Amino acid sequence: MTSRRLKLVVSYDGRDFAGWQSQTNGNTIQDHIEAAVEKISGERTRVIGAGRTDAGVHALGQCAHVDLSAELSAERWHTALNALLPPMIRIMRARFVSADFHARFSAKAKVYRYRIVNSAVMSPFERGRAWQVRQRLDRSILERAARLFIGRHNFASFAATRSKSDENATRTIDSIRVRSRSDLIVIDVSAAGFLYKMVRLITGALVRCAAGKDDIDSVRLRLANVSPSWPRVAAPAHGLYLVRVVY
Amino acid sequence: MTSRRLKLVVSYDGRDFAGWQSQTNGNTIQDHIEAAVEKISGERTRVIGAGRTDAGVHALGQCAHVDLSAELSAERWHTALNALLPPMIRIMRARFVSADFHARFSAKAKVYRYRIVNSAVMSPFERGRAWQVRQRLDRSILERAARLFIGRHNFASFAATRSKSDENATRTIDSIRVRSRSDLIVIDVSAAGFLYKMVRLITGALVRCAAGKDDIDSVRLRLANVSPSWPRVAAPAHGLYLVRVVY
Repeated sequence: MTSRRLKLVVSYDGRDFAGWQSQTNGNTIQDHIEAAVEKISGERTRVIGAGRTDAGVHALGQCAHVDLSAELSAERWHTALNALLPPMIRIMRARFVSADFHARFSAKAKVYRYRIVNSAVMSPFERGRAWQVRQRLDRSILERAARLFIGRHNFASFAATRSKSDENATRTIDSIRVRSRSDLIVIDVSAAGFLYKMVRLITGALVRCAAGKDDIDSVRLRLANVSPSWPRVAAPAHGLYLVRVVY
Repeated sequence: MTSRRLKLVVSYDGRDFAGWQSQTNGNTIQDHIEAAVEKISGERTRVIGAGRTDAGVHALGQCAHVDLSAELSAERWHTALNALLPPMIRIMRARFVSADFHARFSAKAKVYRYRIVNSAVMSPFERGRAWQVRQRLDRSILERAARLFIGRHNFASFAATRSKSDENATRTIDSIRVRSRSDLIVIDVSAAGFLYKMVRLITGALVRCAAGKDDIDSVRLRLANVSPSWPRVAAPAHGLYLVRVVY
């Protein structure tokens, strides 16, 4: 039986799950989709995601592919998967693609979003879906600091696992867009590739500047001069969204 | 000890609660706030809400008042209440008002919102927060039908408990605003007073028209001619929000 490659666009509320990547104790997005595939057609196969989101991180448009042998239309797969998956994981779109498409390696860019509620009181509707920062943030400082990250830099100071000297931590951020509307601040970051926890560490640094805890020059220095002594403050997982993958 | 009247603006995700109004088996918003007041100052007192939202109905800006004797500032009450309340109930604002303010009787108007996701697949982020309607809705028909409700009418055909002949079911809808953005349809209804389940029954009728199940004239007829034979289709509770109360 020949197999065909199905491309999935997946949305999930990360709160209930242990991240994207399969784990022995299960309850990851990948585990749930693989289990649903096995229930539908008996196929035990790997689902390859574009990016591995951590526990608590959300996705609006994670992309994945999976090779399938069963003679079902993409529409039937779509409906059957959603019927079996937990409601907080939804296949938003499903279509067959050519065998040379690869969810991870064909990706040209990814867009991540970080959501901050800058308020003393957290709306119930934002709970688990944004980072509540009580201290008043200066939005013009936040925007100015954000612009420093655009372009090609060594982001070793903004990666969770410190890069070994021979590992390349150079990445290129195509754009950072900061929008704010009353209490909500939304930061969209687009790049071909990201280091581990990079968006959360960038957001952590931006918030420290906007709260007046760090000077904006500290960002400049950390981008120019990689030193292990700089503190790394990661914004919490539940404010982060994988918005889309560009192919 | 003289008491002072505290005005509260309350937001809640209605999913976890049995509505606003106090019940013997508890777990209503009112019960939770009254229990928190008692824990803070030992006062057993009633919290009066502007409107009684049903189980599952949400609020962005429910208003309430409560008479309190303890010598605490409004800010202290605000913080203490939020510290004790479940996170899905938040006091958004709290301030002392004059004794002639009444959350229910002083209200000049209320604004309710109904949210519809018109899509075959429901985003995880809208689950429990909007009504998923799979059948394609004609938005221009929905908007035309909505305009018929504006003004002064006998809304007996759009009330859950059929009005007795001597009961006045005349209400005035000040405005209905329909907005739609991709899959999301948002209907805001403003009026001085509403009948029981009125917004959900209006929304149910609008969706039947927009889905081609009823003619738009059926709305006209039901507004002109109150007949018990008309079917009453109420949109589900979890798409409804009490947005604000105008004083």
